[in-house]
Amino acid sequence: MSFAALRERFGARFSTAEAVRGHHGKDATFHAPHPPDAVVFPETVEEVQAIVRACHESGTPIVPFGAGTSLEGHIGALDGGITIDLTGLDRIREIHDEDMTCFVEPGVTRKRLNEELRATGLFFPIDPGADASLGGMVATGASGTNAVRYGTMRENVLSLEVVLPDGRLIRTGTRARKSSAGYDLTRLYIGSEGTLGIVTGIHLRLYGIPESIASAVCAFPSVDAAVDAVILTIQSGIPVARIELLDEVQMDACNRYSKLEYAASPHIFFEFHGTPAGVAEQAEATGAIAQEFGGSDFAWSTTTEERNRLWQARHDAFFAAIALRPGSEGWPTDVCVPISRLAECIAETRADLASAPFPTPIVGHVGDGNFHVIFVIDTEDAGEVRIATELNDRLVRRALAMGGTCTGEHGIGYGKMHFLEDEHPSALPVMRLVKRALDPKNIMNPGKIVRL
Amino acid sequence: MSFAALRERFGARFSTAEAVRGHHGKDATFHAPHPPDAVVFPETVEEVQAIVRACHESGTPIVPFGAGTSLEGHIGALDGGITIDLTGLDRIREIHDEDMTCFVEPGVTRKRLNEELRATGLFFPIDPGADASLGGMVATGASGTNAVRYGTMRENVLSLEVVLPDGRLIRTGTRARKSSAGYDLTRLYIGSEGTLGIVTGIHLRLYGIPESIASAVCAFPSVDAAVDAVILTIQSGIPVARIELLDEVQMDACNRYSKLEYAASPHIFFEFHGTPAGVAEQAEATGAIAQEFGGSDFAWSTTTEERNRLWQARHDAFFAAIALRPGSEGWPTDVCVPISRLAECIAETRADLASAPFPTPIVGHVGDGNFHVIFVIDTEDAGEVRIATELNDRLVRRALAMGGTCTGEHGIGYGKMHFLEDEHPSALPVMRLVKRALDPKNIMNPGKIVRL
Repeated sequence: MSFAALRERFGARFSTAEAVRGHHGKDATFHAPHPPDAVVFPETVEEVQAIVRACHESGTPIVPFGAGTSLEGHIGALDGGITIDLTGLDRIREIHDEDMTCFVEPGVTRKRLNEELRATGLFFPIDPGADASLGGMVATGASGTNAVRYGTMRENVLSLEVVLPDGRLIRTGTRARKSSAGYDLTRLYIGSEGTLGIVTGIHLRLYGIPESIASAVCAFPSVDAAVDAVILTIQSGIPVARIELLDEVQMDACNRYSKLEYAASPHIFFEFHGTPAGVAEQAEATGAIAQEFGGSDFAWSTTTEERNRLWQARHDAFFAAIALRPGSEGWPTDVCVPISRLAECIAETRADLASAPFPTPIVGHVGDGNFHVIFVIDTEDAGEVRIATELNDRLVRRALAMGGTCTGEHGIGYGKMHFLEDEHPSALPVMRLVKRALDPKNIMNPGKIVRL
Repeated sequence: MSFAALRERFGARFSTAEAVRGHHGKDATFHAPHPPDAVVFPETVEEVQAIVRACHESGTPIVPFGAGTSLEGHIGALDGGITIDLTGLDRIREIHDEDMTCFVEPGVTRKRLNEELRATGLFFPIDPGADASLGGMVATGASGTNAVRYGTMRENVLSLEVVLPDGRLIRTGTRARKSSAGYDLTRLYIGSEGTLGIVTGIHLRLYGIPESIASAVCAFPSVDAAVDAVILTIQSGIPVARIELLDEVQMDACNRYSKLEYAASPHIFFEFHGTPAGVAEQAEATGAIAQEFGGSDFAWSTTTEERNRLWQARHDAFFAAIALRPGSEGWPTDVCVPISRLAECIAETRADLASAPFPTPIVGHVGDGNFHVIFVIDTEDAGEVRIATELNDRLVRRALAMGGTCTGEHGIGYGKMHFLEDEHPSALPVMRLVKRALDPKNIMNPGKIVRL
């Protein structure tokens, strides 16, 4: 099927308009746009298969697209080709409330899923902040604020339906809670960033909405003290649902953007899930730890309104950071280190960032040892880009030297491919073998993760 | 390196003695023995690499061997070749108590690891019953009694060190708690049953030993009632650490073998982990559910001695089953279904088993929808083997028809390869591509999982 044939089949759902192409070639960050040659909007799995078969025949690159909220250039059409916008595959195909599972199409966003689930008393916990599509969350192995309690996409996808690069459709498993039946293709596709196939169906694990939810905010005299409190909380086995660090720069940004009135000092945002008694016990134990490290008064509350305001502010941290400097763009980077090295890693990073001529707030899922730096830069200023690049390089090298990883949750895209080489000198050839075996024509999101 | 060269290098650690070969060709079950041509006992990673390089050069099949406790013929040397016994790689290389991680060699068994960890206040929870080696547990993606709370090996291995089929050594990740850096090779090797490489190092997640542990035993009027109680317990979000069903046949066997005095009716064994208050709350909530379904008096206790006796009996269930019939062998099979179908699946299976001329106890990790049937057969009696084969076929087909999997945790080996074809008609070609790409000479445990 040529472009003409695709246009004929998809009519208005096939577009080469510049605005449409531009929108699909640019992610949520500073990465330069790489528009595809055309964008097509399928609405069924069969349509996805037809498009993929056509591209396979002609050797046309394919970029799968969800909500466009990824952060490392995952969706740039580096070699042109077709972007497949999957937002039209937005059916929740099955909800099995007795089994606490559901089967969704990739275009369903996490917020919509949770809205539709509300009546069942169940929810899907993974929350990367943005209202990402679930297909995108599979592709990037998304994680976020409550991974510390519920795990990442890897732990919460039961199995997948995937269109292979030649258009065949496979199912990687069932919706049984566990299986030892053959190679774990489910996890191979999770985090593969659209380079091995296109996810068209996802069996997800769900959880009961907790009987009680409490939140708390606590100021600390220093980032060190805050991180030490986090480490002890985790080591104590308190099953915190969220434990998020915002450093003084980020708190200042959030105060301005979200009209909060916290001190401009490092803060931890907490959330606890459980029975009323369990939540009280968790909050009190955590409060005692916070106090030990000089934390402020640890007031916790089960008020929904207060909690929603708090987490909305946390989710808006990226926009709050950019708003510190009108006209700027945000470059959010992330690393993850063993938690014992976290305080040291953040301290050294903070010291290194001190010389930056632009804001560099730090915010992170510190319960997992994962934190982000947002470089708030003028992307037209080559000097600033160079400085941010150098700071990012040193950040990643610091994390690797401490036994960590170049990305805890943002992924590789094309933005971190050189770091993947540093982190995985021995495993990268195996990743290449996998890519070559499963996508021999190299048409699936080429130029991402590994170069063939 | 020829056999002669291996003998020269390894001396007494290279053996072609019949007893040694026989021991290494037979797993813990009824599967026919397939001894290798020789067994070699390396003690370092470099020695493993040297052996693998030699076999790669000569195209000699390699079977990795841990504790020999696998159940689907994983260790049979179907095409002869060399068995690499990894029990000599038994160092605990690192314990990071602050990070709650450790790095171990594959020959360390789970019981030894937990003994060595005791002083740190940490433990490794995955418990398949047998004192398996951790390398074997990675290879089979082991699971077991407390997977319902802590997950399986998939959720508790941070990363691996693996010797590839050509002798190269790779590291699949770091010991950071999460990473999005490239394809998830860690999970690709977990459950690959030695068909893609040999695991020589394992970064594991550890957990704090719970402040309080309580156990309980509860009799139910029927398997249906017991399973319904389990389903409601899970749906209620009670974080049970263990919730194990033993049907009336298995209870009778355990009473005899482990000198217990329970009624010969279906029972659930429970375990709860948490703070003293949390454990009390969990036990009371579960007790109320049990009562709703006609469960007996739900006495729970935090006595260590009573608890150890209980779980030892549970772990000895397989031996108790075999002891029902002196001179017999056990054929343990397992399936896993969505929990909403569990009661129905067990009831239909129990009805089908009624005609069997040999004992067929049922025992299972029912919180995950996973259960086992043990066929206690005379393997010399072709009629009995045929009947067991037919019962097993119908069991697997029943589970697949209910949206389940042909094995929840025992794996494929060569015993379930035909079922893998039934379960994964679409994904099997992709599994073959992976095998061919990563082991092009097909020397790694050939004839297991997929045939090339």
